[in-house]
Amino acid sequence: MEGKIEFVPAGTVTSPRGFRAGATYAGIKKKTNDVLDLGILFSEAPCVAAGIFTTNRIKAAPVVLCQERLPSGKAQAVVVNSGCANACTGEQGLADAAEVAELAAQRVGISPEGVLVASTGVIGQTLPMELIRAGIKQVVLSEDGGHELEKAIMTTDTLPKEVAAKVGESQFIIGGIAKGSGMIHPDLATMLCFLTTDAAVDIDFLRVALKRAADVSFNMVSVDGDTSTNDTVLLLANGLAGNEPISQGSKLADVFQQALDRICIYLAKCVAGDGEGANRLIEVTVSGAPGMAEARLAARTVVSSPLVKAAVYGGDPNWGRVMAAVGRSGVEVVESKIDLYIGNICLVRGGCPLPFNKEEIVAILRSPEVPISLQLNLGTATATAWGCDLSEEYVVINSHYTT
Amino acid sequence: MEGKIEFVPAGTVTSPRGFRAGATYAGIKKKTNDVLDLGILFSEAPCVAAGIFTTNRIKAAPVVLCQERLPSGKAQAVVVNSGCANACTGEQGLADAAEVAELAAQRVGISPEGVLVASTGVIGQTLPMELIRAGIKQVVLSEDGGHELEKAIMTTDTLPKEVAAKVGESQFIIGGIAKGSGMIHPDLATMLCFLTTDAAVDIDFLRVALKRAADVSFNMVSVDGDTSTNDTVLLLANGLAGNEPISQGSKLADVFQQALDRICIYLAKCVAGDGEGANRLIEVTVSGAPGMAEARLAARTVVSSPLVKAAVYGGDPNWGRVMAAVGRSGVEVVESKIDLYIGNICLVRGGCPLPFNKEEIVAILRSPEVPISLQLNLGTATATAWGCDLSEEYVVINSHYTT
Repeated sequence: MEGKIEFVPAGTVTSPRGFRAGATYAGIKKKTNDVLDLGILFSEAPCVAAGIFTTNRIKAAPVVLCQERLPSGKAQAVVVNSGCANACTGEQGLADAAEVAELAAQRVGISPEGVLVASTGVIGQTLPMELIRAGIKQVVLSEDGGHELEKAIMTTDTLPKEVAAKVGESQFIIGGIAKGSGMIHPDLATMLCFLTTDAAVDIDFLRVALKRAADVSFNMVSVDGDTSTNDTVLLLANGLAGNEPISQGSKLADVFQQALDRICIYLAKCVAGDGEGANRLIEVTVSGAPGMAEARLAARTVVSSPLVKAAVYGGDPNWGRVMAAVGRSGVEVVESKIDLYIGNICLVRGGCPLPFNKEEIVAILRSPEVPISLQLNLGTATATAWGCDLSEEYVVINSHYTT
Repeated sequence: MEGKIEFVPAGTVTSPRGFRAGATYAGIKKKTNDVLDLGILFSEAPCVAAGIFTTNRIKAAPVVLCQERLPSGKAQAVVVNSGCANACTGEQGLADAAEVAELAAQRVGISPEGVLVASTGVIGQTLPMELIRAGIKQVVLSEDGGHELEKAIMTTDTLPKEVAAKVGESQFIIGGIAKGSGMIHPDLATMLCFLTTDAAVDIDFLRVALKRAADVSFNMVSVDGDTSTNDTVLLLANGLAGNEPISQGSKLADVFQQALDRICIYLAKCVAGDGEGANRLIEVTVSGAPGMAEARLAARTVVSSPLVKAAVYGGDPNWGRVMAAVGRSGVEVVESKIDLYIGNICLVRGGCPLPFNKEEIVAILRSPEVPISLQLNLGTATATAWGCDLSEEYVVINSHYTT
């Protein structure tokens, strides 16, 4: 392995060399203290770029635009707004997304084809273009503007989700920001995540590495089982670290993948733990599965179960719900082989319930991170998924979202 | 068609000729006013019997017992308890289920092979057999005991779910009871449902008819997406109506199927509308789908979406969530062809949002039954699914279920 991976204090999407960002309040969201709703991410050097998007068949206009532009493998800026998803908006939505890209391109002085677009917010409303035209002119880019950009993409998020890591003696840095909260059950990505790196990376490897990282991170979180129309993960690599371009099999490939995985897992856990109404992070590990697809499906089904989530919220040691969820996951399981742990306490061995100290289990369920693990004893594959508890607050937030 | 179908006032599972039932409080559930937790359904004549069970790979002991006995196509009694699911209980659970069947057989004076068993309640606890041994001796059967039996299978249900219908000049009657509430996303059945008829029915036809009826009723409801370990639908036909045995193609086959469908849809809607914490029934109809499987999947995905459910609870006209749900359902849809209605008001035509009067939509969302329909304009298949809104009360109920 080439070099160790170290998190950067207060790291964000502008931590890698050559990236700048900025944001403003354009008036798309309701005005509250300190609110931002429109931002730009920009690299001073052209980047190779890869993206992963929602598998929802109803795709927002900005997703359609990104998917049209990314086959080139190139981009230099991203413009993003919150407060309006620009989804289910027909031809008008596509025209608006293209205009937003053009306005951002003028602002940063590049051609429109170099700009990608993302939106998050209410579905079925068109973008307030007058506000956006005025707003984009107010965006000022800076070298630590990643923090502002993160604020501009938050909706019901309660905490910013930012991270950066450097590899070895700062050979290169990878940074990222994300937003999550509701409608989170990504099928190829989470709501919005922007990743940057100053590493020089071959485009083919970049695409593969991003897919791999998303599969162990964003594709393993769930807040509510609802997959968004706007899910977008973008990774821009500008090469300013000056390394030999990384490609499949090159000496930095492994450490790049590891660093990218860790960045994505960090952000994915932030998204899960800050789900709408959430009080704690649930981490479900399924091991001993016959294959990786089975391990992933079983872990994600358990972490998505509303009954498991509600039990964790209430500190209720109702482990039968974990068994019921894995049983309905579609994965072949043999009841008499299953071991079930909450924390490191075994509650079921070989399918049979063991006596347990209720207070001990309740204490684990009330901690900020709740580890649940299932050993299927059928094979060797292991996967981990992350989610959050289900509280009354989730219902309160989502029963009056547009009113 | 042979004869019209009429609902029987105060009809229940003992409305068909020759069926009796009774229940008692054995002490399995916590004592509250009027609570019952153990009951028996009995036919004075031997029955042909069909059953449909959970597809969860973790199956409760009573489900395993029923699946072992039903290939014979014969049964004469059902014994059922609430308060303990007898699921994830290993060999002990199977032995207990067999003993419960034997005790019930002694009580009603038939051989144990004629008894089917069902349980509902907490997973992972063994049956309190001392209480059940004493309890079964107290069960007294009567000709209107269906109402008592329904009470004995309720858990967090707030309303009994009972129905009966007679065909023509009382050629035959079909009766049914059900319980639902939580962990409701049946894959072949709902939590528990017992159906009786005095019609003479050929066993092959009975099995097919029950499957067909379940597919348009119980398999189209969802409360929370969690499929139970104990889902059981049983149909016993004792032939005391004295009709020519009904088989595929015989003159009463159509009307029997129609009556059974209506009975099952009635009970399924009761289960959906009385979901844990529910305030209103949501009815989602998808038409213009390319095939029936697609119509069913799309309807069920929309009615299961926690975000759609929360919006209905809050009276929030956030129709974009309906579009997002159908888009992630896995069904091939073309956004620009979709029409969306809430009640009879069109909100989306050809994928484009229409202006609407918010107060009108809010009024529909606040009514006891909320109809949502999607026209995909791709084919001719139509399916309807039923669910309920998602309230804080669902979380409250499920966060302290075992404590």
